[in-house]
Parts: sequence; C-alpha cells; structure tokens
Amino acid sequence: MSMILVFNAGSSSLKFQLFKKGQDGLQVVAKGNCSEIGSDKPNFKCDVFDGDKSIEKINQTQQELKSHEDAFGFVVNHLSHPDTEPAAIKDKSHINIVGHRVVHGGGKFWEPTKMTNDTIQQLDDLGDLAPLHNHRSVIVIKACLAMLPDAQNYAVFDTAFHRTIPRHIYTYPVPQKEAVEYDIRKFGFHGISHGYIAKQAAKALGKPLEDLKLITLHLGNGSSICAIKGGQSIDTSMGLTPLSGLPGGTRSGDIDPSAVFHFVPKPASLDDTSHLTEAERVLNKQSGLLGLAGTSNVAEILERMDSATGDGQDSAQLAFDVFCNRIQNFLGAYIVLLEGVDAIVFSGGIGENAYQLREAVVQKLKFLGAIIDHAKNRYASTQPQGYADIGAGSIRLLVVATDEEREIAETLTSL
Amino acid sequence: MSMILVFNAGSSSLKFQLFKKGQDGLQVVAKGNCSEIGSDKPNFKCDVFDGDKSIEKINQTQQELKSHEDAFGFVVNHLSHPDTEPAAIKDKSHINIVGHRVVHGGGKFWEPTKMTNDTIQQLDDLGDLAPLHNHRSVIVIKACLAMLPDAQNYAVFDTAFHRTIPRHIYTYPVPQKEAVEYDIRKFGFHGISHGYIAKQAAKALGKPLEDLKLITLHLGNGSSICAIKGGQSIDTSMGLTPLSGLPGGTRSGDIDPSAVFHFVPKPASLDDTSHLTEAERVLNKQSGLLGLAGTSNVAEILERMDSATGDGQDSAQLAFDVFCNRIQNFLGAYIVLLEGVDAIVFSGGIGENAYQLREAVVQKLKFLGAIIDHAKNRYASTQPQGYADIGAGSIRLLVVATDEEREIAETLTSL
Repeated sequence: MSMILVFNAGSSSLKFQLFKKGQDGLQVVAKGNCSEIGSDKPNFKCDVFDGDKSIEKINQTQQELKSHEDAFGFVVNHLSHPDTEPAAIKDKSHINIVGHRVVHGGGKFWEPTKMTNDTIQQLDDLGDLAPLHNHRSVIVIKACLAMLPDAQNYAVFDTAFHRTIPRHIYTYPVPQKEAVEYDIRKFGFHGISHGYIAKQAAKALGKPLEDLKLITLHLGNGSSICAIKGGQSIDTSMGLTPLSGLPGGTRSGDIDPSAVFHFVPKPASLDDTSHLTEAERVLNKQSGLLGLAGTSNVAEILERMDSATGDGQDSAQLAFDVFCNRIQNFLGAYIVLLEGVDAIVFSGGIGENAYQLREAVVQKLKFLGAIIDHAKNRYASTQPQGYADIGAGSIRLLVVATDEEREIAETLTSL
Repeated sequence: MSMILVFNAGSSSLKFQLFKKGQDGLQVVAKGNCSEIGSDKPNFKCDVFDGDKSIEKINQTQQELKSHEDAFGFVVNHLSHPDTEPAAIKDKSHINIVGHRVVHGGGKFWEPTKMTNDTIQQLDDLGDLAPLHNHRSVIVIKACLAMLPDAQNYAVFDTAFHRTIPRHIYTYPVPQKEAVEYDIRKFGFHGISHGYIAKQAAKALGKPLEDLKLITLHLGNGSSICAIKGGQSIDTSMGLTPLSGLPGGTRSGDIDPSAVFHFVPKPASLDDTSHLTEAERVLNKQSGLLGLAGTSNVAEILERMDSATGDGQDSAQLAFDVFCNRIQNFLGAYIVLLEGVDAIVFSGGIGENAYQLREAVVQKLKFLGAIIDHAKNRYASTQPQGYADIGAGSIRLLVVATDEEREIAETLTSL
C-alpha cells in the first residue's frame, strides 16, 4: 500500500487530502479541512471515499483546535484511529509521502524539496518575504516529522510554477544591486493552482497544453491571474509578496507605492518596527473588498448589490466594479503579452461560484471574440468532470474546479 | 495688444512660451527654456518669432540661475529688455494673462484657478501629495505677482484632465474612511499633455474627438499613458502621485507595495521622518531606467544596446525590455477598457524620438491590427504639421509633438 497525504495550511485553516496510488493514477481516500483554527469555534470537515463512493461525511464544530500543530495532530489521528470505521489509514506506515504546500520559495527553492532540519530552517528564514504564510507550513512540517517519522516530507512551492517568467517581466525597476542581493523581484503565487487549472483547461479543450495560450484566474480570498504559454507561466499578477496585483478579500493589490506612506504611523520607540508592520497590516488585512465594502464575503457583496439601498448598496457595487476593472486590466495586459488567447479560465472560490462577476468581467471582451453563454454561465457546474464550458465565441471561456492538493500529489508522484 | 505668457516649472528647468492673440488664434512670439537651474552651468534657450519666421535664436550657458525665482526674473527681463532688439514684450502691461502649469490640484483644484495669496497658500499646502513639484510652481507664481502686477495669474493643473476617470477606477482598495478623508486615490498627471495630444490626434485623423477611442503615451523622463474616450480621460497610469504606473527615468513605477519597506531604513531619532523620505527618494530618484541601466538617458540606452558588450549591453537591454513590457501591459489594459482603439499616439521626448521603442512596443499588437510602417516610423518627423502617421494597419499609429504651454494658453483663452 502506498499513500500520499497532502497538507495546505492557510491563515486559519488546514486543508488535507489523502491519496492512494491506483492503476488509474491517484485516487482520493479522504479529504477535508480544519477551519477557524485558533477561534472559539473551530470546525472539522472530512469526507472518506471508497472509490467514487463517499462512505463517511463529517462536518462538526470541535472543542479545541488552538494551532496548526493541533489541527495537524487531529487530522492524522482521525484518519488513522483504529476505533473509527472506516479508518482511512489502516497503518501509518502506509503513508510514504507527505506533501506540503509552502507559499514562498524565495530565490532559493523552486523544485519540490525534501524536508530536513536544515531545509526547514531555511524555509522559516524566508518568512521575511511571506511573513503570513511560510511559518504556518513550517509548524505543520515539524509536527509531521515527529508524528509520521517513516514518511518522506516534501515542500512544494506556490512560487515554483512562475520560475519561467522572463527576466524583463520579473525585474522591478529599482536599484539592481539591492534588488539582486535581497531578491526584490516578482515571484508570483498560486502557482500550484494555476498549473493545475491549465492542465484541466487543456483537457477540457482537447488540445495539448504545449499548443495553448491560456489566461487562468484564481479568484478567492487571495486572487491572482496568470498568462500561460505552452504550459509555462510568463507573467502573473502577484509579485514579491501576495500583496500586489488584484485586490483580495482584505489585500489592497496594486496601489501607488507612495500611498503606502500614508498608512505608516510614527514609531513609538526606535526599536519599534511596528510602524512598518502596521502599514503592512492595513494593506494586507483591512484593504481590498473589506476596505471598500466592509466585508470580504463576495456572496454578501453580490446580495447587497441587488437588495440593499443607500451606502450598503453603493459600497458593495463599488467593490464589485473595482474588482472587475482590475481583473479586466490584467486580462488586457496578458492578451497582449500572449498576442491573443485561446481560453480564459475562471477558478477559485469566487471564480467558480460568482457567475455575476464572470459575466461582468467578460462583457468588456466581446470585441475580441470572448462571448459568454448566459444560461451556461448562470448554471455552470464543474461536476462531475471538473470543468464547465461557458463560452459562445472564438475565445473559449471555462470554469475549472481547482485542486491544489491533487496537483501537489501528482507532482510528488512523478518525482 | 493682448499677450499670454506661460510657465512650466520642472525639477531643474523652467520652460516658457509667449503668445499673441491673433485672428487665427494664438501665435507664438517667443519660446524657450532655462535648464540645469541651480547647477554651476545653467543654460538659457530662447527663440523669438515674427509670424512663422525665427528672428532671434539664443542657446547659451549663463553665469548664474540659482533658483526658479532667478530663472523667472531672467526670462521676463530678457523678453522685455528695451536695449535688445527685438524685444518680444514691448511693454510689460501687454501681458494680460500668465499661465502656470501646476502638477497637483489634489481633490480641491480642478478648474484653472486665479492665483491670490489665499489660493497660493492652498496650493503650497498640497505639497504633501506632490512634494517635488507644486512648491516650484508656487515660487514662480509669487515672483510673477511681484514682477508683473498688472497680469492675471492662473494655475492650470496637470491632474484636471483626469477628473472624468470613473470612481471605480480612481478608487484604491484601501480603508475608505482614510482614503476619502486624505484624498488617497488615483489623480493622474500629464493631463495638460494628454489633452493636447488627443486634440492633435483627432486633427490628424480628420475625425471629431467625440467619436474617437484613443490611447495617448506621454513618454519622457516621467511617463504616463491615458485611455481617452470621446475626448475624456477614463484611466491613466499615474496615481496618487507621479510615482506609480510606468517606470520613469528615475522612478520605479508600479512595484509590489510591500517592496517599499525594503527601502525604508531605521530612523535615527523619533522625530526623524527621513526613514520615509529616504524610501521615497530611492523609488523616485534612483529607480526606473537609472536603477536598471545606470542611466536615465534613453539615447544612451539605445546606443549601448547596439554597441556595448557585457554588462553595459545587458543592463541597457533589460531597461529597454522592462519599459516596453510595462507600456504593453497598459496598452492591453486600456484597449480592453475602451473595447477597442482607433489610434495609439506616441508623444514626449522618448515617444517622439525613440523609433526603436515605438517599433518594439507595437510589435506585440499585430494580432489586433496595429501594424507599424517601418520606414515611416524610422524617419517620422512631426514637422511642420505637428504630427506624423507611422501606421499601416486598422489601428492608426501616430507620433504627436506635445505642447503643454500652448494647451495652457488655449485653455486660458477660452475661459
């Protein structure tokens, strides 16, 4: 028996999937998510499968999941507990490989990397570049080495897919001595997702990925767009950190760099570097849709656009219009970069669900031959084949259900 | 006799033009520039005209032009000195109107505004938003009130043309309470130039401006692009300040807002705000083409691309490629925003002269019908009619000689 367990640590969540290597490739044995970690109402969700059949479905509030370490232990215990039937993992030694999504590989890590004490330390040191992300993964990886000592742990990087971006696109026009020394350049994120979406799109289009020009949109609490030529990322909207590019649920996305200084308060003491982190906090945590509409919940924004009045309606409409405008800017830029596009692919929580947004975004591209089929778009479902075709013009329009954990498992299987 | 004198203060320059109101509109009587103000080799250039005929041509190093105030006095004295023949201004009282280009109008000034002690103070207070620019204009305006007390002084704002940008485009996704209170939004600059270029383009195309979709490129030491629909700006690449958007000679243009923090050194004392201005200095004065290629001189960059080897060639090529890529990004974004484009118009020192850049930029737009005529592009001259047609496809391609001082004079004449 050979199994792969994959973890994907978010700011307050830990997603996981357990795969079995079968004759037809990887088969999901279990998948789920710990959410609201650290809050007083953490939640645990888990589906266990036998082939295509769901044989157990859990969705319940837990007593306590204080940290990502807690959540990790809880997940492994649940999946392997001998008293519960069915135990997804009969014997922990069946897990050969554990894969971890790690947000930032910096200029050092591009390939999937085996985790040792050494490499773990190096990962944690990159925290500077993605302060909110790498550290959580490091916690999970450390817990994993202790609890599953027989498995090989691999980090797979969200930046790796973007290593093909050409130098003149990843270089920022800042003093190059410092830029090169401190790796101040575009890295790009959501690469695991963009890579997966592109392969799914090629399947849906029935063409080899090598022949395709694609623009993939991963739209969720964090959002990014990627221009993909022949399967390779040639530009993406996030940069040195996930802050730049599109607005997110709480992130500003691109703004005038000078505007940053308006959010930097005076330090309380000379050793106080909080005057910088405070500005980063405002731009990362209080901006984006939240800053515009008072909520980062797109379902609520869409509802308020239709049903609210006054300020509630106005600010929701503004948030929606800003988001669409910024997406359209990148679509235009990438259509020019690719010199045309075969398909535009929507994915991520917002991309897969907010049909109103897909419609509004594509509306500006009619003159180029991107025409949406309103009925197909309205009732688009990515089940069961993983994608939906919503287009009626020469530029194909797709919705793809992204699956970062599967992409990680497939990457590690093919090592 | 009714004359209009226009001043355009740059960081170390003071351009001027003197117009006479004639039957066929405004006629240039004199034009020139004080450059390298404050250096040990300031230069003064001036052409005096009689109709279309140049009757005096000066281009000489001066003993001393310490400040913009000095330069202003020098210009007015030169133009009106009774001992020199021809004195362009026979009698200072013939100057009815003096127009001043002012960079930033903030959220307060959109219309051409008559300068009084009150409005001058308000202008200076906006310095926060455009620290490098408004103050110089204020110095010139004050000198002007003292030296030409009979003339009416008007400020014309570089932000004004962009007041038609829709709210969802000028709004940044940051906390809105602060954004509205402190005017943290996109303003856009080079508006006087973009407005002039658009009108010239309409003339060249022989169509009413109201019917046209244009993208105008003002490419110089500072560069910006503007999407113009029916004569109105609907988006532009600069933002709250001139720092954002395209890279400039020494400005970074758009970068990940997080990258700003890498250029913020620790303050020396709590009252020391230089840790912020230092980062602004690096991003405004040491970045852009200078940061990439060690020079902001595009002619030198173009030469090094052809003739240099090693690092000299490599960094020049990188600067060129980065600049073209960022221009193409905005072209794509604005073609989508406009849902097609009738003409792309190059202007400014670089836009009017660097044919290699025009060729490289347009090359990516072939699939949309923008095709450059290589010979016309190579030998494009905007003389005598003010523009050149360099296109051979369905999207028209033009080069226009911009003339901010004429645009200001025309604006003030039509008040």
